[in-house]
Amino acid sequence: MEGVDHLAHERSKAQFDVDQMKVVWVGSRHALQVSDRIARLVASDPVLRKDNRTMMTRKELFKNTLRKAAHGWKRINELRLSEEEASWFRHYVDQPAYTDLHWGMFVPFIKGSGTEEQQKKWLPLAYKMQIIGCYAQTELGHGSNVQGLETTATFDPKTDEFVLNSPTLTSSKWWPGGLGKAATHAVAFARLITDGKDHGVNGFIVQLRSLDDHLPLPGITVGDIGMKFGNGAYNSMDNGVLRFDNVRIPRDQMLMRVAQVTREGKYVQSNVPRQLLYGTMVFVRQTIVADASTALSRAVCIATRYSAVRRQFGSENGGVETQVIDYKTQQSRLFPLLASAYAFRFVGEWLKWLYTDVTQKLQANDFSTLPEVHACTAGLKSVTTSATADAIEECRKLCGGHGYLSNSGLPELFAVYVPACTYEGDNVVLLLQVARFLMKTVSQLPSGKKPVGTTSYMGRAEHLIQCRCNVQKVEDWLKPSVILEAFEARAIRMSIACAQDLSKFSNQEEGFAELSSNLAEAAVAHCQLIVVSKFIEKLQQDIPGKGVKEQLQNLCNIYALYIIHKHLGDFLSTGSITAKQGSLANDQLRSLYSKLRPNAIALVDAFNYTDHYLGSVLGRYDGNVYPNLYAEAWKDPLNESVVPDGYQEYIQPLLKNQLRNARL
Amino acid sequence: MEGVDHLAHERSKAQFDVDQMKVVWVGSRHALQVSDRIARLVASDPVLRKDNRTMMTRKELFKNTLRKAAHGWKRINELRLSEEEASWFRHYVDQPAYTDLHWGMFVPFIKGSGTEEQQKKWLPLAYKMQIIGCYAQTELGHGSNVQGLETTATFDPKTDEFVLNSPTLTSSKWWPGGLGKAATHAVAFARLITDGKDHGVNGFIVQLRSLDDHLPLPGITVGDIGMKFGNGAYNSMDNGVLRFDNVRIPRDQMLMRVAQVTREGKYVQSNVPRQLLYGTMVFVRQTIVADASTALSRAVCIATRYSAVRRQFGSENGGVETQVIDYKTQQSRLFPLLASAYAFRFVGEWLKWLYTDVTQKLQANDFSTLPEVHACTAGLKSVTTSATADAIEECRKLCGGHGYLSNSGLPELFAVYVPACTYEGDNVVLLLQVARFLMKTVSQLPSGKKPVGTTSYMGRAEHLIQCRCNVQKVEDWLKPSVILEAFEARAIRMSIACAQDLSKFSNQEEGFAELSSNLAEAAVAHCQLIVVSKFIEKLQQDIPGKGVKEQLQNLCNIYALYIIHKHLGDFLSTGSITAKQGSLANDQLRSLYSKLRPNAIALVDAFNYTDHYLGSVLGRYDGNVYPNLYAEAWKDPLNESVVPDGYQEYIQPLLKNQLRNARL
Repeated sequence: MEGVDHLAHERSKAQFDVDQMKVVWVGSRHALQVSDRIARLVASDPVLRKDNRTMMTRKELFKNTLRKAAHGWKRINELRLSEEEASWFRHYVDQPAYTDLHWGMFVPFIKGSGTEEQQKKWLPLAYKMQIIGCYAQTELGHGSNVQGLETTATFDPKTDEFVLNSPTLTSSKWWPGGLGKAATHAVAFARLITDGKDHGVNGFIVQLRSLDDHLPLPGITVGDIGMKFGNGAYNSMDNGVLRFDNVRIPRDQMLMRVAQVTREGKYVQSNVPRQLLYGTMVFVRQTIVADASTALSRAVCIATRYSAVRRQFGSENGGVETQVIDYKTQQSRLFPLLASAYAFRFVGEWLKWLYTDVTQKLQANDFSTLPEVHACTAGLKSVTTSATADAIEECRKLCGGHGYLSNSGLPELFAVYVPACTYEGDNVVLLLQVARFLMKTVSQLPSGKKPVGTTSYMGRAEHLIQCRCNVQKVEDWLKPSVILEAFEARAIRMSIACAQDLSKFSNQEEGFAELSSNLAEAAVAHCQLIVVSKFIEKLQQDIPGKGVKEQLQNLCNIYALYIIHKHLGDFLSTGSITAKQGSLANDQLRSLYSKLRPNAIALVDAFNYTDHYLGSVLGRYDGNVYPNLYAEAWKDPLNESVVPDGYQEYIQPLLKNQLRNARL
Repeated sequence: MEGVDHLAHERSKAQFDVDQMKVVWVGSRHALQVSDRIARLVASDPVLRKDNRTMMTRKELFKNTLRKAAHGWKRINELRLSEEEASWFRHYVDQPAYTDLHWGMFVPFIKGSGTEEQQKKWLPLAYKMQIIGCYAQTELGHGSNVQGLETTATFDPKTDEFVLNSPTLTSSKWWPGGLGKAATHAVAFARLITDGKDHGVNGFIVQLRSLDDHLPLPGITVGDIGMKFGNGAYNSMDNGVLRFDNVRIPRDQMLMRVAQVTREGKYVQSNVPRQLLYGTMVFVRQTIVADASTALSRAVCIATRYSAVRRQFGSENGGVETQVIDYKTQQSRLFPLLASAYAFRFVGEWLKWLYTDVTQKLQANDFSTLPEVHACTAGLKSVTTSATADAIEECRKLCGGHGYLSNSGLPELFAVYVPACTYEGDNVVLLLQVARFLMKTVSQLPSGKKPVGTTSYMGRAEHLIQCRCNVQKVEDWLKPSVILEAFEARAIRMSIACAQDLSKFSNQEEGFAELSSNLAEAAVAHCQLIVVSKFIEKLQQDIPGKGVKEQLQNLCNIYALYIIHKHLGDFLSTGSITAKQGSLANDQLRSLYSKLRPNAIALVDAFNYTDHYLGSVLGRYDGNVYPNLYAEAWKDPLNESVVPDGYQEYIQPLLKNQLRNARL
């Protein structure tokens, strides 16, 4: 049966141009060509195999990761890959490694926070990997509250140096990836102290290990923080612990783009506005949103293909059983996640545009949109990563029992993904930041200040507070304007309700704390509106390819109506829609599932993932699941011997009732 | 700081008798004494340590599990533990093992399905563990659809034997725990074929391995199916694959309590009604509900204690930061889960009673309540396990970044728990069974047939369809009758709406399939009503101990109002409550959180878990988290050497730009 495509029949049902959809998914024909070529390159490289990962010990796994990183760097140089190609290469290697932090945090941060001189000194070393950098911010006792970090960097004017110190146990740096075993350097964050005065948290470049023998430098205690969630997964990363015992670094290793310490020890702001630093944060968060759509699409691809392969029930007369993808319960759980993957893709695409837009504005000293941009990236990071984490586990459950096997790929995908809900801003903390911004925006409405960007709908508050959804039959729910208005009404009414409740408190901070749970819900409503509206905007673009736009329209409607059903309480309690309209939305949703059904396999094929990248027996392109599950089983180390190690000591004496005198 | 109780201040705030609450939690003073003694016995036994589990390879872990099982059996016999004590012992060992299936499935199934003669022959062997049994039902291609199993057992009248065969790849037995490496015998399920006729699925006792050398018997192919979700977790279990190639067993190894094959090969029903077999299923499912409350309470205990330890933000003036448990966002996520743990506890307790009740009825040939009992156990299994799986992950997130560390205990708790959503009936499939029963009950209402047990509220359909919730102020939501009626109204209105939608279909099965998603939601509403009503019934009992009842009342209200908030769409769209009342419920919920807050730590202390059983640095009883996290880190194998294995080959040449000629 090898070589047979068991899903060929499914593929033949597609009502759209799959190749064109691949272009839409990845962003451009060029990107598709590059990513496709690199994906195949990685998949065919025996050093980069992943299927043995969950059977390795931590040490084996880490060594294997070092090997892959070195091999990858060698190949990138041998093949003279462009930065774009190299980035795809690292992406498809698909194993968390110190290089992620080196390229994804250390380099961008020096670019963003270093002076030109500092960039000139450090970036070439980093680009050639003559140093390995990490990003040492989080401490054992402080994650979300960055301003509460305890590490100190005290300026010593005698020697023109900073002295870095970890004054408490909880000030130990904790979590930074690459720190544990690999990094030679760190951007470390510490409270800057000059002349006995605390100037708050600043970044410093600190060498951690000798470039000769990799031993920690004097005063530095560094190691790995231990095993994390799952098998394989993030355990390939050396998340680290770091303590400073009066470690001295030259003054010019403080990152001085926005603030400096002079030779005399004076702390001075530079003429570069601090707001410029937000650019890096927007960049990092738009990457996270893009990664959410990628992780979600992988899980959905596996669950969709296996749902077409798997059959269960429905053959009273001994005929072939029903494919589980044909059950409405399966569709109502799976298809909204497929739609979400596309929705997050397009909002991520838009965030990428937003990043370049805000960068240009910042460079032109235009900071006016920054609060809105900040709220919007924070909020989208929160809602997309939370939804994705839940969705991966839902996809695993949608695969029935076999989803629990490591070789389904889903357990590792979940374990490796979930920290995205916590890092770069805890998702609930971020929602409260969004809510704070929304409350401010609402409070400024009476003054006539026009809300910008993603909050511009609030400028139509008067209309949205009193408008009535005029859906009367199921088809009315297919109109983008109807959907949009329902989402806008829900979002603004929730915000305004919060603002009214807040106004009853004499102390605003107390009120905010008391109502924070409602505020977070209002923030979610606002962010889901953004996702829906960006999907609708995408559909207003010219999208070539037979049937492609129709599929996207269907997905957009599914996403929106699914959110309405899931958050029906919001829509009803704000009066944005009526119970009858909610029921019609749900009816419409079922017909949309039927429309999606014949296209389901093609829609996940459009992600263009290799079997190597998916790493799932259940999600194999050819659908040949069962013989491969069976074959994989025998590779487990436990099957190396027919009688298990331990039989003589622990099973035989038990069966023979000879445990009494056994030494166990 | 060792020996200091960092949570002493929290404990001093408790407004109730914690010892009395421990009795309530575990069920009786006697059960508390036994479980407490056994828990300490297990915790102090060096063979039974768990903290090194996630660092073991699969083979090490499995051998360690065999050792623990043998050691446990030895101790159970040495100490002459009663069956009750032995069961607690296995529980606190807290490592999935073949013994779970031996005691939890093999023995009960022979008891339930074997004739007296068969019980007399096999049970003594099983009780003394002279054989090790497993339960081989699920196949590679069939899980939920038991009637679709493909394994055959063909009667051969010439030799008076059954011939077991695996006719297809998908007929391979797949998943049975203990099968892979440990079991000597199985209760195996196969289609009984006599004289060319298929009589459907029956159970057979089959010896798998030699009692002399543990080698598989002729015709038997058996092994482990490979790694599963997570580290440690269920990988201690040898879930297995099994194929039969014309394996012969004597006729008397078919389990013949309800149906027999005669010497001549005739298939005959015995005079024991088939319904008796349902007793076993009710027993197994009530165990699963009890386990849900246990798993949930462990996660909640960890998250609650660490939320009191952890501080973040809120110290503008350099003072001590706010405990995260004081944030409303934390409370609104954590406290409903604490309430759920108690709610599931009591509904589990009631199910235990129901099991004995239904057993008595079955023995008296009274099968009248069986459909209701079946629906109720299926539904409660579904809603409690789904909620628990989600809740464990939520508790992990509530611990911030550190919840991602293996030594938080939460990743393993999640990985080991989630299969409960799939095994013993996939949760969605079970909900549809409940829905089918509800539709039948609704359809019989006009005939005047009185619904029984958990559906008796449907007898008041007329009232519940038109009643209006009369909540006018927040305090009204504290009345049990008000809460109950809102839940009843929501449940019956959803059921009736489904029934009405169904009636529009000419083909009922098609309608059921099309509306299955709505039907599943109606089933959830019904089951949540059961949980709430059993909690309220519990409160009507005499509960001694200062303040204990008040705490339980608070928890009951939190659970109910949390469900109302979470499923607000249901309550509003059915008109069971108004938007204003939903908002009042939410306001009330916030005050209930404030009432719970000072008692939070004591309420999780009442679970009476040892640090060994919890297995979490974050959930330590003494709250001394950070020094222990720090100390644990250094035990990771990666920290055995300062410079990692692989540095010479993969880091040094990279830094020195010498990869070009390196062999990687």
